[in-house]
Amino acid sequence: MHAFEPNGLVTLTSDFGTSDGYVGAMKGVMLSISANLRLHDVGHEVPPQDLVRGAATLAAACPRFPSGTVHLAVVDPGVGTTRAAIVVVAGGHAFVAPDNGLVHDAVSALTGDEQGPTAFRIEGHPYLAPSPSRTFHGRDVFAPTAAALAAGLLPPDGVGARIAMAISPASPEPAPVGGRLGATIVREDRFGNLVTNVTSWHLTAWAGERPVVVRLPEGGVLPLVRTFSDVGHGEALAFINSDGRLELAVRDGSAGTRLGLTRGSRVAIEVDPVRRL
Amino acid sequence: MHAFEPNGLVTLTSDFGTSDGYVGAMKGVMLSISANLRLHDVGHEVPPQDLVRGAATLAAACPRFPSGTVHLAVVDPGVGTTRAAIVVVAGGHAFVAPDNGLVHDAVSALTGDEQGPTAFRIEGHPYLAPSPSRTFHGRDVFAPTAAALAAGLLPPDGVGARIAMAISPASPEPAPVGGRLGATIVREDRFGNLVTNVTSWHLTAWAGERPVVVRLPEGGVLPLVRTFSDVGHGEALAFINSDGRLELAVRDGSAGTRLGLTRGSRVAIEVDPVRRL
Amino acid sequence: MHAFEPNGLVTLTSDFGTSDGYVGAMKGVMLSISANLRLHDVGHEVPPQDLVRGAATLAAACPRFPSGTVHLAVVDPGVGTTRAAIVVVAGGHAFVAPDNGLVHDAVSALTGDEQGPTAFRIEGHPYLAPSPSRTFHGRDVFAPTAAALAAGLLPPDGVGARIAMAISPASPEPAPVGGRLGATIVREDRFGNLVTNVTSWHLTAWAGERPVVVRLPEGGVLPLVRTFSDVGHGEALAFINSDGRLELAVRDGSAGTRLGLTRGSRVAIEVDPVRRL
Repeated sequence: MHAFEPNGLVTLTSDFGTSDGYVGAMKGVMLSISANLRLHDVGHEVPPQDLVRGAATLAAACPRFPSGTVHLAVVDPGVGTTRAAIVVVAGGHAFVAPDNGLVHDAVSALTGDEQGPTAFRIEGHPYLAPSPSRTFHGRDVFAPTAAALAAGLLPPDGVGARIAMAISPASPEPAPVGGRLGATIVREDRFGNLVTNVTSWHLTAWAGERPVVVRLPEGGVLPLVRTFSDVGHGEALAFINSDGRLELAVRDGSAGTRLGLTRGSRVAIEVDPVRRL
Repeated sequence: MHAFEPNGLVTLTSDFGTSDGYVGAMKGVMLSISANLRLHDVGHEVPPQDLVRGAATLAAACPRFPSGTVHLAVVDPGVGTTRAAIVVVAGGHAFVAPDNGLVHDAVSALTGDEQGPTAFRIEGHPYLAPSPSRTFHGRDVFAPTAAALAAGLLPPDGVGARIAMAISPASPEPAPVGGRLGATIVREDRFGNLVTNVTSWHLTAWAGERPVVVRLPEGGVLPLVRTFSDVGHGEALAFINSDGRLELAVRDGSAGTRLGLTRGSRVAIEVDPVRRL
Repeated sequence: MHAFEPNGLVTLTSDFGTSDGYVGAMKGVMLSISANLRLHDVGHEVPPQDLVRGAATLAAACPRFPSGTVHLAVVDPGVGTTRAAIVVVAGGHAFVAPDNGLVHDAVSALTGDEQGPTAFRIEGHPYLAPSPSRTFHGRDVFAPTAAALAAGLLPPDGVGARIAMAISPASPEPAPVGGRLGATIVREDRFGNLVTNVTSWHLTAWAGERPVVVRLPEGGVLPLVRTFSDVGHGEALAFINSDGRLELAVRDGSAGTRLGLTRGSRVAIEVDPVRRL
């Protein structure tokens, strides 16, 4: 098992928004267990019950924190069902979340090939709310577990039995079809940039050194360039983003609006017909 | 009077949003009084000037923090009028807010039957802005008062004379009419869940041990169940939420959209005609 | 040069929103450089790529923090172009931002007439990401620089050569035309209040002691009063706001909606024809 040595930091990620008191209630519960915890919001504007977006948010943010951080993550469409509540230790970090795949991508980013993550089912410990509600486990189960771990009051294996964690909410894998690599838009960010399921690893495995372009559904083609300034103002481009994924964008504009694409839309990678070797 | 012993924690709740610098200005003012204060956002996305939603947010979050916390709360449609600015001490917590009922529900949740809250009007103290603006008391009056209290530089009764605080923005009380208990939707949360003005206490007082259902305006009936998984996907339900209130929801959907109800809509509690004892 | 003595505080302002992991990634990077930094969100809901709004947010918030604070600010439509990344020291504060005018107004508010700000181009230092991405300098350039400055690991002049910083995204200056002072709406806040480019300094310079009114495009006139309660419910007014700027508002309503004005709309200041001396 990876060692977990708490550093007192807790990150918070949820789909609760901040119009209501849900986030504040979780913070209050944690600080009542240990007032010295250092809480850091990753964000609470994950769209309601959107596991794919939440998983991407966690994967982009959590691995950047120092080893010993506890990550409290609540996007929980299954609250009140039999889905488990879990603690996952990976790369020296601990995650506290529902067992619905939400933390899968972040955990994967933190674990090497030689050493997988370790997951425990939250079955019972002294810091849980005495009579947990059936509809707000964020406050009654996840927050007190995160606080107890971060304060060093409880070790990860002190919450319950070891289990196998759920896999990620499935994004389709890119698939070669008829001389093309089929790709899917998995996320549109706040700027209208469109993130695909294709990584730089996929691109190299499929195309090798050959230059590629992105074919849009309506027939047009986007060049694969390095960054925004490689195209003119208002022009569309494809590039490898800061997380290593193929992304479509419009310089000083919204690719979602301009290209008429959204999550689930499909595009194709092709060898560049002009620059073909 | 309740003792108030500051623990250095300050929570912030407002309708300021975070597109503008209002929240940041309040934080800067507080940290300029004491850089060691530990500030925790409850949330700033309370809908503009919505006292009912703000009061509910505070009531859900503030009582969860440890005794000794200062709660800075600003939803202030009356800024620039003669409404008072107050400090309220309740259950070992201190609230700093306009005297417009905003903190009433949170204060009530923190005070027992034997000991009411104590309120003081902010009349003058050394930490106020020298020439407070007429339109941003959050920055010039409330934030410096909260910081001085949290840092132990000022006791609650050092801000001004004791007064009676304003009552809550009135939610109608549930009312028995013709064999039914009339209920009102008081809040729709981010998930489209509809919170009513009926608590589990009201239900028991009215129905005793008899099973009940919720009658919708258009004639349909919702079962009162324990949690989401007691109904099928996409089905509507009524349940007692994590704050002890009757709430209407749709499993994996929005009750607001699906049932066509919103804040102010009325529903009725009836004894279950099928399971009637 | 202004001395900069770090106090361990870092503020964060961006247009990243909190649906994605961009903000969390910056926090993780900073806390991995020094886990003891005290991070404070000013806000991340600046509209995407809106430099004018971002500059106003920073100007309203940053000067309120204590001397020694580092302000990380990222609204960066030019990421991936040749725009510089800079550190600016002003009034004992340090700003870390793209060199696109974003921090100009905040820096101006912190520097007196006798002593201007000092700016340095971020060219290289040991805390930068080894291979910075071309599209997320917030995470790879700005955040590590801010953390190293705030932790005292790097002095401001240790990031690169001194340069002249870019000026602010230009708001038009108010201009006297035909016996009127022409004004422009530069910002609409969350409440629908309309902030103009006219300061109390402009007003006094132009009108002296004469009473003025605001002439709307459709011909109507707003009184210049002290605060909301000087007019009736639902009535429109003009007043000098808490930052010293002329602002149009509607008591208990939205001036943007009610007056049909938005950013870029023009109004005129006139000597009050009724109260003319």
